[in-house]
Amino acid sequence: MRVAIVGATGAVGHELMQVLERSTLRFDELLLYASPRSAGTRLTFRGQELTVQVTPEGPIDADVILASAGGSVSKALAHQWIKGGGVVIDNSSAFRYDQDVPLVVPEVNGEAALKHQGIIANPNCTTAIAVVAVAPIHRKYGVRRMIVSTYQATSGAGQKGMDELVEQTRHVLDGQEATHEVFAHPIPFNVIPHIDSFQDNGYTKEEMKVVWETHKILGDDSVRVSCTAVRIPTLRTHSEAITLELERPATPEQIRELLAASAGVEVRDDPSGKLYPMPLTASGKYDVEVGRIRESLVFDGGIDLFVAGDQLLKGAALNAVQIAEYLQEHGALKERQRI
Amino acid sequence: MRVAIVGATGAVGHELMQVLERSTLRFDELLLYASPRSAGTRLTFRGQELTVQVTPEGPIDADVILASAGGSVSKALAHQWIKGGGVVIDNSSAFRYDQDVPLVVPEVNGEAALKHQGIIANPNCTTAIAVVAVAPIHRKYGVRRMIVSTYQATSGAGQKGMDELVEQTRHVLDGQEATHEVFAHPIPFNVIPHIDSFQDNGYTKEEMKVVWETHKILGDDSVRVSCTAVRIPTLRTHSEAITLELERPATPEQIRELLAASAGVEVRDDPSGKLYPMPLTASGKYDVEVGRIRESLVFDGGIDLFVAGDQLLKGAALNAVQIAEYLQEHGALKERQRI
Repeated sequence: MRVAIVGATGAVGHELMQVLERSTLRFDELLLYASPRSAGTRLTFRGQELTVQVTPEGPIDADVILASAGGSVSKALAHQWIKGGGVVIDNSSAFRYDQDVPLVVPEVNGEAALKHQGIIANPNCTTAIAVVAVAPIHRKYGVRRMIVSTYQATSGAGQKGMDELVEQTRHVLDGQEATHEVFAHPIPFNVIPHIDSFQDNGYTKEEMKVVWETHKILGDDSVRVSCTAVRIPTLRTHSEAITLELERPATPEQIRELLAASAGVEVRDDPSGKLYPMPLTASGKYDVEVGRIRESLVFDGGIDLFVAGDQLLKGAALNAVQIAEYLQEHGALKERQRI
Repeated sequence: MRVAIVGATGAVGHELMQVLERSTLRFDELLLYASPRSAGTRLTFRGQELTVQVTPEGPIDADVILASAGGSVSKALAHQWIKGGGVVIDNSSAFRYDQDVPLVVPEVNGEAALKHQGIIANPNCTTAIAVVAVAPIHRKYGVRRMIVSTYQATSGAGQKGMDELVEQTRHVLDGQEATHEVFAHPIPFNVIPHIDSFQDNGYTKEEMKVVWETHKILGDDSVRVSCTAVRIPTLRTHSEAITLELERPATPEQIRELLAASAGVEVRDDPSGKLYPMPLTASGKYDVEVGRIRESLVFDGGIDLFVAGDQLLKGAALNAVQIAEYLQEHGALKERQRI
């Protein structure tokens, strides 16, 4: 079996290769693609040097195509790529809201992936991280309202986002004024409540993605979801403060037990030992850290919690590879006629 | 009239001197006090060099005593200081929950200050900043539920907090591992959902201060308040994402108009012009910036907003001086027999 990565030289591409190295996915060849500017780059995978090639505008001769080259590239080319007989697992928002494209977090709605028609969408990072913790709670206690405030890392804007934070922080520490290209304002020692473009309702697209995608992944539009998405000066891992109103009251102890038994979650919740979710500990980790689990003060029987998840992993590369693993485990990677 | 600052050499003490320089408060002498370690320091006020003296353990010969030397010092000595006939405006949490001590944000409940019995408490910074925006909304539309997630600067832990952020960020950028003394974990490029000590209910004291103090300042225990208090790697200005359920529905436009006419608030809410509250613009500013005002997606007729306020100013020094100004304007600084 062949796997292809489109956007191999980006921040998510880098993580995709790392995750594939450790993956249980059985495949015997990896193809790497990127823009013409990055083509020719040599990258090492399982001890072998591979040369990055220019992203094809036609069919890709691979069974699984992990795409992370931005929405416009995917939108323009994904339907061509799958003419090679493979399935595209797309990290952009290009197809997430298409009715015939499953939006999948394997721990939550893996079975939806089996019904794909050539393209499967990987969710927005903030949503993927939240939903790993919230879905088990929704299943058992019924989430009525979900209020999310995010603490999002610069890597949400890719490698160039992280570079801007590091470089501009140096400037500020040297007594110079910070500039900005990637973010709407200087990011060092700042907080920017603006991620992606503003919509007519005053919410950003990033905030609305959390609403739309939570509904689609949970398969339940009746949950009332709101989000404030905020960029902060961290390198990787998104944190989120989440308040939940529940149909059926739950205690923090019940939620802790439930999440301890849930896939993709690490309960990290011992205030006396100073254990709670943090970018410092969640970065590089596959599981989403969940802690600060406590009784809501505004909803009787509701729950407050805090999550931290590496958005380059569960929020992107890891989730994409997990979808491929899920397909293979369920015999859904069909024998493909090589082109 | 004489004013005294106790804790003159700390971060808030520094801000108190700056704010007093620009204040309309009429006084002719300033006394500066600090711990024995800092006594002897010479500080300039209105072009004059003043020598910091050791904090008295008995009466202070001043009309207004602005105390910012920590809760234990205030608790032990404030009742001695006021034997000099002055009023203590205390920045610590030592007296905030005492029934006979008013907790005052002048724009909200200035009249409470007039009923003091020698001590007036300055609120927790996060609460002071939130309540400037929320109180006018509560008065007009009735806040039923208030859900707060904070983005708190290191200056909340004083000068040493800011120093730790700067110093440790340099270490990380130089490829070294960050250490920590002031904060529970390394703060550079990290997020720490832990400010002040944990309570039995799983909330931190910082979070419960927002609940208790919002109730006391609004004079209304029926508002259901919850908070997640989070330290992030910024230098000054606390930001807060706030979701409000209202008794009487309001539109974003109504809230914008209301807040534009409210004291202590700068409405900064033009997404198309990339204008919203941020530490970068709110730092050093007297008004609290309020923006991202939008219809709640979880409460019909409710409102979401984002605030940023300089917690060394409105959250501390400025509010204390404004209390003194309020007392003077209302003839409540009685002629004192000098000791």
